[in-house]
Amino acid sequence: MTDAVLAHALNRKPQLIEVLKTLVACPSIGADPAMSKGMEDARQLIEAHIDAMGFKRLKRLTPSDGSGQPAIYAERMDAPGKPTILIYAHYDVQPPDPLNKWDTPPFEPAERDGRLYGRGISDDKGPMMIALDTLAAFVAVEGLLPINVKLLIEGEEETGSPSLPGILETHSDLLGADAVLSADGARWRPDLVALNIGSRGNAGFEMRVQTAGQDLHSGRYGGIVANPLHVLSTLVASLHDAQGHITAPGFYDGVVEPTHDESTEIAAIPYDEESSFAAIGAQPCGEAGFSTLERLWMRPTLDVNGMWGGYTGAGSKTVIPNEAFAKLTMRLVPGQDPQRAKKAVIEHLKAQLPAGSTMEIYGDRGQGGAYAVPPDHPLLKAALAALEHTTGQSPLKVRIGASLPLTEIVSRVLGLDTVMFSFALSDENFHAPNEFFRLSSIADGLAAWVQILRQLAEITPSEFTPYRRT
Amino acid sequence: MTDAVLAHALNRKPQLIEVLKTLVACPSIGADPAMSKGMEDARQLIEAHIDAMGFKRLKRLTPSDGSGQPAIYAERMDAPGKPTILIYAHYDVQPPDPLNKWDTPPFEPAERDGRLYGRGISDDKGPMMIALDTLAAFVAVEGLLPINVKLLIEGEEETGSPSLPGILETHSDLLGADAVLSADGARWRPDLVALNIGSRGNAGFEMRVQTAGQDLHSGRYGGIVANPLHVLSTLVASLHDAQGHITAPGFYDGVVEPTHDESTEIAAIPYDEESSFAAIGAQPCGEAGFSTLERLWMRPTLDVNGMWGGYTGAGSKTVIPNEAFAKLTMRLVPGQDPQRAKKAVIEHLKAQLPAGSTMEIYGDRGQGGAYAVPPDHPLLKAALAALEHTTGQSPLKVRIGASLPLTEIVSRVLGLDTVMFSFALSDENFHAPNEFFRLSSIADGLAAWVQILRQLAEITPSEFTPYRRT
Repeated sequence: MTDAVLAHALNRKPQLIEVLKTLVACPSIGADPAMSKGMEDARQLIEAHIDAMGFKRLKRLTPSDGSGQPAIYAERMDAPGKPTILIYAHYDVQPPDPLNKWDTPPFEPAERDGRLYGRGISDDKGPMMIALDTLAAFVAVEGLLPINVKLLIEGEEETGSPSLPGILETHSDLLGADAVLSADGARWRPDLVALNIGSRGNAGFEMRVQTAGQDLHSGRYGGIVANPLHVLSTLVASLHDAQGHITAPGFYDGVVEPTHDESTEIAAIPYDEESSFAAIGAQPCGEAGFSTLERLWMRPTLDVNGMWGGYTGAGSKTVIPNEAFAKLTMRLVPGQDPQRAKKAVIEHLKAQLPAGSTMEIYGDRGQGGAYAVPPDHPLLKAALAALEHTTGQSPLKVRIGASLPLTEIVSRVLGLDTVMFSFALSDENFHAPNEFFRLSSIADGLAAWVQILRQLAEITPSEFTPYRRT
Repeated sequence: MTDAVLAHALNRKPQLIEVLKTLVACPSIGADPAMSKGMEDARQLIEAHIDAMGFKRLKRLTPSDGSGQPAIYAERMDAPGKPTILIYAHYDVQPPDPLNKWDTPPFEPAERDGRLYGRGISDDKGPMMIALDTLAAFVAVEGLLPINVKLLIEGEEETGSPSLPGILETHSDLLGADAVLSADGARWRPDLVALNIGSRGNAGFEMRVQTAGQDLHSGRYGGIVANPLHVLSTLVASLHDAQGHITAPGFYDGVVEPTHDESTEIAAIPYDEESSFAAIGAQPCGEAGFSTLERLWMRPTLDVNGMWGGYTGAGSKTVIPNEAFAKLTMRLVPGQDPQRAKKAVIEHLKAQLPAGSTMEIYGDRGQGGAYAVPPDHPLLKAALAALEHTTGQSPLKVRIGASLPLTEIVSRVLGLDTVMFSFALSDENFHAPNEFFRLSSIADGLAAWVQILRQLAEITPSEFTPYRRT
């Protein structure tokens, strides 16, 4: 029995692709002030599309101070007694540099071998169009949506969503919902049916070690003063023990080790470690006692992302520098408090600092905690059921080692849970040259989105109540 | 009883200062190809000065391939049966940058408070003029020099003397002598009568640690791959133990620890450690079991002069870099073989390198060994006696922690020993803005140079024979 809504949506796939191409042709690079026309063109195109499917209260949202790129809002509250879902996407894209690495111009969408190429096509204009055209198909065929839908389409995702917390706070009444369904995100791998259930948080800081008031000549001072590069190296070397554990006392406070069931579940996920590492020219390495996927998904990390000091030009300079620098970030897992974890690392560094050296800590940043969808959350169950229904396979529950600021911001500001339900695939060159979107993902996505809306229509709003933290 | 030669030389001090000012006004910056006229002007001025005092065989020397800045050569073989001394100086100067830090223009010599300011005035045009005008005074008063003198005035000292070994090799017959007396160098401190008897050698290399084929995102790979900045830090941290000893097996091979007498002699040298360290905003630090001056003069060192990897710009980037770099140099002491010491460090690094990382060693440089004048060398004894005669004080024997390529090159190529007999003082801003020369040093220097030549005239060439290694 064919779903009439899905049939309609699939019939209109050529039109979807045409709108998508027009949208990708708008260079909506939020980071580049010179691209404000591209941003505005993208907004107007999306607004027109939303307006045409009968959405109400179409407007642009900004934080109370009016700053930043506006988010697009609209709603159809068609289904009294049914859940209200806030559907999220973003209309901004990454800068296309380096331009010379693109086979075709980034803002001239080109179809090759079943793929559509262009900046932002996979992240996330393609996945967004799948969500929007699913809604359009319901309106066209049934005259109504099966649930209440609020749309929030952000313009600053690629620049770190600086205005998003303010927008959510300022417009919290308007944005009230039972849960958030994101068209942004990515499926892990083309060969697996999987749903992302968690992401790591992050936090970071910078440090400067100083040992003297000025750079010194290694002939005149070599052997009689501390070298800040040696001091900094010793500090960095002290951050991990020989088993790869982070040594800072208190850093692991709150971390929940993978349960036996979780380890079993993760171990069952098909994962070709050898070829994954061969692809990046590296060898598996990390905390003893955990598998690679456990390390990546369930364990916190601490990495120096940059480190420098002294003479770094060509040739040699016999200098003993007076200062050395490092930038550190950590990835955090559920249970860890970012501030507390960061403080543990800083306290450890202070305790290790030798006499005669001073240390300055600054550049405090990235307070995003980790996020995991509660395992019994109704939206998660609906998403799993929708994928199982459309693929005939039981979806694997996977996580990502990176951070999804959206999920953490939504949780913190609105007290709501988020399910990432994108039909991008993680190999589609996001943020890189030759970004593409598989055309085959459109049918997969439309089927899943039709199905998840139908699943959600079977749930009463009260089932979400235990999970709403407002 | 006044020395007539010295009296003549002192009488002509105003003329010496005038010639010195003219010489400093020549911007003889060997490193800057645009300054070739300054180099040529300096050469011609010096040649005219030498020619006027009746030196023979005045010529310009280059290596056999004719490359580089020529050295000026001339000789007066006035004293059959007396020693032949090669007197060394250089006519090139350091670049004057940063120009805006100079109180008066670097090539417009200016007198203030008993000091003459200008680039190269202390290093070493002032000290060179003292040596030359001493010779001129002998010729003027006695018609002859009391010993045989060969002059070698180099043009590449400030660029590392790349042609000097070739010049010495090509012209080794012409340059044959009993020992080398250098007008270049520096007295340690204005408050001490001291003579430098040794310097440290140096050697260096660069290293690159690689852990993957490409930079990786800390979200996608954090915790599962090695971070080269961590690896490099661990390697650098492993170079010294907690007592400040260098850990590489074999590094100290051949090093002679200070004897009881040497330690006593060094301990007796007036040295205000507290104010020396306060001046550079640092605290004493180094190898346990040795005093600061022992660490600086008698102990080898190993320093990272530069280190870098990953993201070093503003803000944060959650990258795990795939490579990290360091530049290392060591200061070596007599008894150490530079190649062997360097090999010991490299072998240690290789042994510490963890599995999964690769390391490349390159940029091999600085093979200069340490140098010490043999304690009983006739030229050293003559220099000590000259200083004692002119100052009434017994000179302290000091060393420098830096390297003096001249001494090592002369020893290696000509098999001769060198005494540094400069009347510059080490606080006179060599290689820095506002370089100056104390006018009072001229009389001190002329007295000492007259006296050392008289001392040398009392020695027979055969006394040098045991020290000549040709």
